[in-house]
Amino acid sequence: MIPRDAGELVDLARDGSRTALARLLTYVESGGPAQRATAALAYQSPSPYVVGLTGPPGAGKSTLTDQLISVALAEGSFDGVEPFDQVGILCIDPSSPFTGGAILGDRIRMQGHATNEHVFIRSMATRGHLGGLSLAVPDALRVLGAAHFRLAFVETVGVGQMEVDIASSADTTIVVTNPGWGDAMQANKAGLLEVADIFVINKADRSGVRETRRDLEQMLDLGGEHEWRPMIVETVATNGTGTEELWEAIVSHRRFLEGGRREVDRRARTRAELDKVLAVMMRSRVGALAQGAAYEAQIDALVAGTTDPYRAAETLLSES
Amino acid sequence: MIPRDAGELVDLARDGSRTALARLLTYVESGGPAQRATAALAYQSPSPYVVGLTGPPGAGKSTLTDQLISVALAEGSFDGVEPFDQVGILCIDPSSPFTGGAILGDRIRMQGHATNEHVFIRSMATRGHLGGLSLAVPDALRVLGAAHFRLAFVETVGVGQMEVDIASSADTTIVVTNPGWGDAMQANKAGLLEVADIFVINKADRSGVRETRRDLEQMLDLGGEHEWRPMIVETVATNGTGTEELWEAIVSHRRFLEGGRREVDRRARTRAELDKVLAVMMRSRVGALAQGAAYEAQIDALVAGTTDPYRAAETLLSES
Repeated sequence: MIPRDAGELVDLARDGSRTALARLLTYVESGGPAQRATAALAYQSPSPYVVGLTGPPGAGKSTLTDQLISVALAEGSFDGVEPFDQVGILCIDPSSPFTGGAILGDRIRMQGHATNEHVFIRSMATRGHLGGLSLAVPDALRVLGAAHFRLAFVETVGVGQMEVDIASSADTTIVVTNPGWGDAMQANKAGLLEVADIFVINKADRSGVRETRRDLEQMLDLGGEHEWRPMIVETVATNGTGTEELWEAIVSHRRFLEGGRREVDRRARTRAELDKVLAVMMRSRVGALAQGAAYEAQIDALVAGTTDPYRAAETLLSES
Repeated sequence: MIPRDAGELVDLARDGSRTALARLLTYVESGGPAQRATAALAYQSPSPYVVGLTGPPGAGKSTLTDQLISVALAEGSFDGVEPFDQVGILCIDPSSPFTGGAILGDRIRMQGHATNEHVFIRSMATRGHLGGLSLAVPDALRVLGAAHFRLAFVETVGVGQMEVDIASSADTTIVVTNPGWGDAMQANKAGLLEVADIFVINKADRSGVRETRRDLEQMLDLGGEHEWRPMIVETVATNGTGTEELWEAIVSHRRFLEGGRREVDRRARTRAELDKVLAVMMRSRVGALAQGAAYEAQIDALVAGTTDPYRAAETLLSES
């Protein structure tokens, strides 16, 4: 296969080529010049509306996502506005970047959308992206945007800080729980409460739903006044119960954001993203600096006592 | 009191002024221009020979340090070479930077060296030093060097990674244990084994000494071949038992280092220190960048889709 440049691939992806889209996402994952060229083009397009899902392994996120895809495509718009006819899904498992994500993606693929041309599913790993998944995911979402996706789901496995960080870079963040709430989520309860726009109690045909809802409501009460009080939706993803209500909750939250909030959030996320890129670039510069002859000269000077570490660092930074 | 500049203070400290020395160390802790000016002068002087002590709270480090000071001053040299007539002690408690260190220092001061003009004791805190204790301690040691100290002790409380990092920037690192070895040390066993040049089993008049020694020996056996096998010394710091052997162990280790090893270690430490300063300076530059008008202009461009985060970051970095 002849390697193509990012510009050609973006044009092909815009015209509907899934192969081109997949290639661009590989560029994003791999880092290096191809990633930069892809990002330079992709960031000219608006991001799709992003729905993030997170929760402990086994909570039923994949089945739920699968159901949401069906409902969303059947609706075909956000309650009548911004029509779409395709949905993108990014599956992320930061704890096992090389295999876990792939397994997740496969699981969804098996559930009915494997041959659906309106659905694009991709497992993300970080093969070389300098900033890891926290930068690769926003890049990937922009690539989907460039390929005219107006709606994307980002699914992360786990409730640790990293998973929550990635999920919370979504416009609407869904935290998936089960009856019993789960010890797995206790450790990062504060973090989850902070990012959740919607709580789902999946497997709501099991006992303990009422207690879990009560616990959640109590925690939300303790959380104080906010412009948006997280909604709580009960679902049974395996048979589709509650998934239409969940879609409606997403649409409600989107409507809330449209009242000005979305731009504020996006600007804050843009800021956070730029800060991350700045930090990553600076770290890589330190790494590069530490390999040059100028650096060794400064070490010699320090050992000889003719400079101090602060002056040495300033000299290196001013020359870099 | 009239503030003095670092140059004057260094001259006074060289002539034996403890007030000037104390002021310089306050400059180091506080960060800012005074810290930089102090560092610029202090790094022209060689570092003293540094003995680091670490171990869990209550292991008897302060009493042991107190005894070592007496032995070292009575000896007055490292087995006949590099004579010294004063000893500096830095007391560090990273877990409670504002009060813990002070209490520690007071404890030592109470133990007999309060009015000894040959002993200088200082509790270190980080009041504003950009790099925290990991940079303030090397700076402080250089200040002692500038004031003609040829021997210094650095005592850290705790066996976490930070405490061990600080203690391990010494020439000779002593890990203080007690009979029973202690649950406190289990968590970071690998880290302690890696940095220890000498293990002390203090409170060796208690039962369990033989088992603790056997455990340590077994761990050292598992650690594989090294040029220097950490020595194990038993002490009863409260009555001075074993402290002369401990001093001899320090002198033995110093002799080992003099066979070329010391320069290798110091170069490696110089490198680590410069990397830390570089990283800290870059972080502070990111902070400064994120407050300027140029940064806001890049955020505007990102929101408008006329740039991407990588290009925006490069632009900001090239302008900074």
